[in-house]
Amino acid sequence: MTNINQQIILAKRPEGMPDQNTFKFVEKDVDNLEEGHILIKTLYVSVDPYMRGRMEDTESYVEPYQLNKVIDGGSIGEVVESKSDDFKQGDIVIGVWGWQTYYIANEKGVRKIDPSLAPITTHLGILGMTGLTAYFGLLDIGQPKEGETVVISGAAGAVGSVVGQIAKIKGARVVGIAGSDEKIAFLKDELSFDEGINYRTTQDLEADLKVACPHGVDVYFDNVGGKISDAVMTYLNRYARIPVCGAISAYNLNEVDMGPRVQTTLIKKSALMQGFTVGNYSERFNEGAQQLGAWLKDGKLKYRETIIKGFENIPTAFMNLFEGKNIGKLLVQVANREYSQ
Amino acid sequence: MTNINQQIILAKRPEGMPDQNTFKFVEKDVDNLEEGHILIKTLYVSVDPYMRGRMEDTESYVEPYQLNKVIDGGSIGEVVESKSDDFKQGDIVIGVWGWQTYYIANEKGVRKIDPSLAPITTHLGILGMTGLTAYFGLLDIGQPKEGETVVISGAAGAVGSVVGQIAKIKGARVVGIAGSDEKIAFLKDELSFDEGINYRTTQDLEADLKVACPHGVDVYFDNVGGKISDAVMTYLNRYARIPVCGAISAYNLNEVDMGPRVQTTLIKKSALMQGFTVGNYSERFNEGAQQLGAWLKDGKLKYRETIIKGFENIPTAFMNLFEGKNIGKLLVQVANREYSQ
Repeated sequence: MTNINQQIILAKRPEGMPDQNTFKFVEKDVDNLEEGHILIKTLYVSVDPYMRGRMEDTESYVEPYQLNKVIDGGSIGEVVESKSDDFKQGDIVIGVWGWQTYYIANEKGVRKIDPSLAPITTHLGILGMTGLTAYFGLLDIGQPKEGETVVISGAAGAVGSVVGQIAKIKGARVVGIAGSDEKIAFLKDELSFDEGINYRTTQDLEADLKVACPHGVDVYFDNVGGKISDAVMTYLNRYARIPVCGAISAYNLNEVDMGPRVQTTLIKKSALMQGFTVGNYSERFNEGAQQLGAWLKDGKLKYRETIIKGFENIPTAFMNLFEGKNIGKLLVQVANREYSQ
Repeated sequence: MTNINQQIILAKRPEGMPDQNTFKFVEKDVDNLEEGHILIKTLYVSVDPYMRGRMEDTESYVEPYQLNKVIDGGSIGEVVESKSDDFKQGDIVIGVWGWQTYYIANEKGVRKIDPSLAPITTHLGILGMTGLTAYFGLLDIGQPKEGETVVISGAAGAVGSVVGQIAKIKGARVVGIAGSDEKIAFLKDELSFDEGINYRTTQDLEADLKVACPHGVDVYFDNVGGKISDAVMTYLNRYARIPVCGAISAYNLNEVDMGPRVQTTLIKKSALMQGFTVGNYSERFNEGAQQLGAWLKDGKLKYRETIIKGFENIPTAFMNLFEGKNIGKLLVQVANREYSQ
């Protein structure tokens, strides 16, 4: 029996918001398995805002996606056939093979994960790149100290929700900005954020920030850019630090993203803004993953996932990211486990 | 004989560009000298862009000037009468008494400088706060490495001209942006900058930057903000550092200073922007002053001063700062030395 590999390829570089024409579904026969290789059936694929950047043909920290090639990103799968001594049928593996239903890997192309330690999906989220992004961005650049105020935009997202919890572990006052009352309730009730601001319903974001941050803002973890960041910048304290992680408000703009220039504020406050990507910290991933795993085990970190089912729903799930519908990490479940449970 | 102290006070907070109505000349009798005090006759006063910020009634890193009070800032003077054992007539002293022709200080209010080591005016310039601003901003935040490219805006100004020379000492390729052909010639011919760009006459600043920086920009020392900075930001290399020292283009704006938001660029390049003021480094002033003095003595640092004569010309000299007329440090000479030479 020949397996059919369904793939989603980049059909067209989006101008502005991606739509269904951005993507194309194609099918290919799965090749025969050679010695030393394994056949993986995809279980979950990661759907992340940074992928929007890779759809542009511009220089960035990661290569742009190529037209008519499969859209890659983090995925988790189950080994369904193995010609490698290192893997057996039923092993759960993680790697970067993106939006396709099957993948043939050599022994170095993927990493085995232990399903008994934590739910396997956490390796695409809180124990994976999103957790590490939060960990290094907050602790290396933001450096929150006990009693300081940390404001997070995109606070209910995959990264933001971890940032806030780590800031709480470090003894900071944590204020989250998010786009629905459900998200604000999640931040305050489940994740113990001190304050939450719904930027969609607020009458006056600056006034709400002033109330939520009576002692000003020491760290602003920026996931969104745009007007929300403009507002937070007006409350910076002296020596404030701004890890710039994402600018989701700008990803789908067709024009130049204009706003108040930041130089005067940075000078007046001796403040720091630093862009980063998790890859900058690749040599310290083990440190981060161990700490995140320990906090998770101790119940100090919680997480929420939004899991959409069905390979055919991946493009829609991706587009929903930009409408702010999901809470926590967004995943698409492509198949169920067959050989392991 | 009673001496008359002429003062310039802040008569009106400027809206936009300061003008003659911003300032008012007043005269006061000089008080009688008490024990432990000295009477100083002002020789030179410093005229700096940062003073514009202090004319606003907004929170910043230094206190706003008060209405109807003398405008303070760095000054150098000669002791004309002493009732202190620590000072004698003819001593040259530096302190912060600003725009007035006489000043009575106690023994701790001023510092003696040695006129035999370097021209006394250097203590308001390359060996003073402007030199220290260049030193700490470039070396602490910019951290140029050998072979890297350092771009400086306001390059022919008091701070910029020192920044470029220190960057050359550190082995960097140095590109200066300034506003006249005379300034560009000064940067290249006298200070050995590798390239200079006249932003007033260029047809295409971005294109000129591309030619001047074939390997991109590793450090951008920003004295001006505005469109010049927008252009430099498009050539940042990965891990670029931007010490944000001044935003002279914004100081006299009456509206919000709008431009392209920086977040996306900072993320793509993992770049850092950090505002600072020299006061942040007060505990390291000795280190900086010693190094600057050594470089000056060894002929590794050169400087240019623009000296305007006459107390009555201080307001005009200050306003000229914003028209980009001066090269190097701008000073006003108020009197000649009487008791020392």
